[in-house]
Amino acid sequence: MDESAGWREVTAITALKARYCRYLDTKRWAEWRALFTDGFVSDTSAAGGQVVTGADAFVAYIRATLGDGRPTVHQVHNPELELTSATTATGVWALHDVVRLGPGFDLHGYGHYHETYEKQGGTWRIATSALTRVREDIRTPLVAVRLTPRLRDAGAALARRRGL
Amino acid sequence: MDESAGWREVTAITALKARYCRYLDTKRWAEWRALFTDGFVSDTSAAGGQVVTGADAFVAYIRATLGDGRPTVHQVHNPELELTSATTATGVWALHDVVRLGPGFDLHGYGHYHETYEKQGGTWRIATSALTRVREDIRTPLVAVRLTPRLRDAGAALARRRGL
Amino acid sequence: MDESAGWREVTAITALKARYCRYLDTKRWAEWRALFTDGFVSDTSAAGGQVVTGADAFVAYIRATLGDGRPTVHQVHNPELELTSATTATGVWALHDVVRLGPGFDLHGYGHYHETYEKQGGTWRIATSALTRVREDIRTPLVAVRLTPRLRDAGAALARRRGL
Repeated sequence: MDESAGWREVTAITALKARYCRYLDTKRWAEWRALFTDGFVSDTSAAGGQVVTGADAFVAYIRATLGDGRPTVHQVHNPELELTSATTATGVWALHDVVRLGPGFDLHGYGHYHETYEKQGGTWRIATSALTRVREDIRTPLVAVRLTPRLRDAGAALARRRGL
Repeated sequence: MDESAGWREVTAITALKARYCRYLDTKRWAEWRALFTDGFVSDTSAAGGQVVTGADAFVAYIRATLGDGRPTVHQVHNPELELTSATTATGVWALHDVVRLGPGFDLHGYGHYHETYEKQGGTWRIATSALTRVREDIRTPLVAVRLTPRLRDAGAALARRRGL
Repeated sequence: MDESAGWREVTAITALKARYCRYLDTKRWAEWRALFTDGFVSDTSAAGGQVVTGADAFVAYIRATLGDGRPTVHQVHNPELELTSATTATGVWALHDVVRLGPGFDLHGYGHYHETYEKQGGTWRIATSALTRVREDIRTPLVAVRLTPRLRDAGAALARRRGL
């Protein structure tokens, strides 16, 4: 590896994981699929899930679980990245995710992704991902997900009139 | 661009966006203003807001909307940064923000900033920023914002006595 | 400092702070202790806490306060890192932490760590850390911390049957 270009690899892997979250939460499934190696392995068994092998199987599994309409939020933090060769890397990320379980019921999860990455044809992809959990809470927001712009504007206007 | 110094640009743009959040949440308006190019354009129309042109107009607009006293939290994650020339860059950031709408009513928002940056006289500044939303929730914390240190200490002491 | 290797230092300090959070939240105390210089100083006086001097004293203090069993979440964001010499650096991080105060009572805190780092024998360590707060909320999740996998699966299955 060209030592002085390592920042490009770190920046690219950071963006890769960011797109994992963004395409998942905005349901851009074809672009999401392209982020994984074909042989991708997801292991959420330590978090109450299962092992899924193959990127196509994984994407199908997540689409069936979440559906296209259920709002989700995945935000990752605290990267621990290591370049292990010119084309391989490892990473740990802290996760905060919000998943709608039902009307007014949200699951707020906290945990860590333990991952490996591979560079194929100049592009970094996620090769394996194992999830561990620190804690999970179910919360009930007063007003449930996906506020309409009208409702949000009304709330903001109300707060402004009250001088808040 | 000196290829080997690219990490300096990425680190500086990351700090720029961090200061955007920190100065906003701590109401350091003069320092906040200095983070934007004079011609800065903010576009929150996709999130129910409007287009504001000019850094001075934008800062005035935000100050009028939030006021100096309303507590806010802006935390950004998942950077997708790209250096497009020696003095320009693009970035996408995931946002989690908390805004007080009224007593006991908080708006928790999740979305993405889509931005461009310019380096002027050695300093990176935010040139444009467009906001999209994934979801927004209104929550009611049991005890509202800005706990006094006394109340917080009392709560912690109580929990400790119960062996929690 | 070898200018072209600066990305390694930034990546290492980022991972250092990530491990600070991860080892704290997973109660890996011996590994957590190794992240600090012996003379580490923690100053949370601006956030209602106190000044603790010495890494051993600090680790003992946190273990006594949190205990081994109380679930916590610490996630950091928005890094503002600066390499001030080959072996010293400064950093500001935004913090979101969740601490269980009692059954069904969680403290959600938001603030900033203001820190210095030192490289000793090739390893970066945290030398000083001062905490300031933006706001703190107490929340009551509907179902309290540490959901069992069985309960979580039941909730997800229920939501799925309802077509949510």
